[in-house]
Amino acid sequence: MTQENTLKLPSGAVRSELVMADGRKIRYYDATARNRSAKDLRPADDQPGIGEMRLDLLTNEWVVLAAHRQGRIFLPPKELCPLCPSKGELLSEIPDSDYEVVVFDNRFPSLKRPEGEWQLPAMAGIETEIPDSAGICEVVCFTADHGTSFGELTTAQIRTVMSAWQDRTRELSKLPFIEQVFPFENRGEEIGVTLAHPHGQIYGYSYLTPRTEKMLKTATDYFAKYNRVLLDDLIARELQAEIRIIAQNDHWIAYVPFAARYPFEIHVAPKVGVPDLAALSEAAADAFPDVAKEVLMRLDGVFGIPMAYIAAWHQAPVRAGRDLLRLHWQITSIRRAPGKLKYLAGSESAMGVFIMDMKPEQSAAQLREVKI
Amino acid sequence: MTQENTLKLPSGAVRSELVMADGRKIRYYDATARNRSAKDLRPADDQPGIGEMRLDLLTNEWVVLAAHRQGRIFLPPKELCPLCPSKGELLSEIPDSDYEVVVFDNRFPSLKRPEGEWQLPAMAGIETEIPDSAGICEVVCFTADHGTSFGELTTAQIRTVMSAWQDRTRELSKLPFIEQVFPFENRGEEIGVTLAHPHGQIYGYSYLTPRTEKMLKTATDYFAKYNRVLLDDLIARELQAEIRIIAQNDHWIAYVPFAARYPFEIHVAPKVGVPDLAALSEAAADAFPDVAKEVLMRLDGVFGIPMAYIAAWHQAPVRAGRDLLRLHWQITSIRRAPGKLKYLAGSESAMGVFIMDMKPEQSAAQLREVKI
Repeated sequence: MTQENTLKLPSGAVRSELVMADGRKIRYYDATARNRSAKDLRPADDQPGIGEMRLDLLTNEWVVLAAHRQGRIFLPPKELCPLCPSKGELLSEIPDSDYEVVVFDNRFPSLKRPEGEWQLPAMAGIETEIPDSAGICEVVCFTADHGTSFGELTTAQIRTVMSAWQDRTRELSKLPFIEQVFPFENRGEEIGVTLAHPHGQIYGYSYLTPRTEKMLKTATDYFAKYNRVLLDDLIARELQAEIRIIAQNDHWIAYVPFAARYPFEIHVAPKVGVPDLAALSEAAADAFPDVAKEVLMRLDGVFGIPMAYIAAWHQAPVRAGRDLLRLHWQITSIRRAPGKLKYLAGSESAMGVFIMDMKPEQSAAQLREVKI
Repeated sequence: MTQENTLKLPSGAVRSELVMADGRKIRYYDATARNRSAKDLRPADDQPGIGEMRLDLLTNEWVVLAAHRQGRIFLPPKELCPLCPSKGELLSEIPDSDYEVVVFDNRFPSLKRPEGEWQLPAMAGIETEIPDSAGICEVVCFTADHGTSFGELTTAQIRTVMSAWQDRTRELSKLPFIEQVFPFENRGEEIGVTLAHPHGQIYGYSYLTPRTEKMLKTATDYFAKYNRVLLDDLIARELQAEIRIIAQNDHWIAYVPFAARYPFEIHVAPKVGVPDLAALSEAAADAFPDVAKEVLMRLDGVFGIPMAYIAAWHQAPVRAGRDLLRLHWQITSIRRAPGKLKYLAGSESAMGVFIMDMKPEQSAAQLREVKI
């Protein structure tokens, strides 16, 4: 089968792109080619307008206002899940009656494709303009199975998710208004997840985020001083110290960082540094699912309960620091004990100073001791 | 009554300083002189050791490790509250049987007075030393009444709290290892508060916190470009726009900032800018309680329930930016509806990009509409 709307990806997976009733796009990612042509039978809802961004002059950081998102659905029962495949009466976000992995444009996007040309306004103090909140918000459904989790997928399924992340990184990096591509997963009601179905999101930002800007500055200064790439040196330190490593294979290392900020924080990085997911070798991409599964199983095993976490792909920006910033996957959990969460209170929230009650070596030992 | 351990403060309030059984200090702040000599009758527990700080090289930020704090008491019943006055069997942190306002050294400090001379290690990449977590952690009990809240205190009581904050700012600023003094209050179990008794904390940091460093850079750049002080201009903008103001009097203005990050965020600033609490005129300090009460009553009134919040005093650092950074009180709440909290998920937590579902003008209107 070859259709105009299909593309064979480097991994062998196949992407099929379709248009939803309201004009949004949906992309099916399948390990091997399948016929994807199911029509979106829902009435064409109006799409919400674009939000705005305001400059916080105290910190020189943009804040995104998405006031139109208040109508979002909140923890619907399984039979009304908008991320399950469409079946009979239920017309969900995914028109087909089954899928492997899909990525579709978010119905309630915080950041939206701008109409016409767009550029970030010049900084002009109090006179700085209020631009539209340009960017991209996509939803990534990891599996059609409502009751599972990313870490419980088969390695083949995770490989297909990886193909989707790689494809989206490649595609979004081509957009002139995108400076940074950020695939991530929020998991758990404790951190405000409103849909239980296993899914992640991809944000395309139209500027360098504060965190990435800071990491780029740090990596730039480091290179100027030592003529080496910062994350390469950090990984070398972890490989040598060993004490904070919790999983590894030929291509990936997973460790609790030396200066972790959360009760459980794990960084997963390729041993051969690359700027982003699209730049991973096929061998490295193929080797990711094993390590990902091990890390997430260890995390769920620490207290024997599903751990709430944020899993964030840090990638080099599209047009800056390509040789200085390295791909890594940062997993942070605020759970510090079965009944206890770590909250960001005064010091963390207002001053940016994190206080950790547990040594990284302690949490690494706890993660390593989990029987899997 | 004049004792060696008492000091009359500029406001007329009197401070009496005593030593607790384990060597920590406690200071009673009273509107007028009272005899404070009650002895701490508890056995002298060992004090926990000092923690360490590790440099997160990815961001060039220090992370404080306070692994000794895990034994902290968690939401004790009222009759065992360590912040109530001592009575009969209950020997609390406050030896006296009654008090107005007290400030004592935290029993489980994240930051601790260093032994001997201390200085922040030089940045040396991976070779950067791990210093002791030098600093100060104090607890501020706002009232002996367990069942009330800061916003419900009388204006006279709040004035005494203000005298205590001013005194602590003056005193801690004299310490050679302190660069920044940060009084704050975490309120509400939703944000992890472990003691219900109305209280705040004061952190003295041994370096400029990431947030303050960023604000100092921004204010410095702003001054270089416009030859004006940033916060003065922001306040002028709010006074002119009016739409985001929620309370004011001759000396203070309270407003929702133009680029608020939280569902409810209020900044309270003196109309005549000063670097810190110690620099407030007596008239401005006297005028604070009225505005503080109005702001907090409006906040509790929005949903008719006590609002969880973080109230953070941003002050100019002790030795930098004294003419560029201005005192202001930042109150942030993550509650966006009676049953809903805003969580810091992927975009906020990993990238530092805040997505707001509500316009600042909306939340300002909601706050203004509260009948008080």
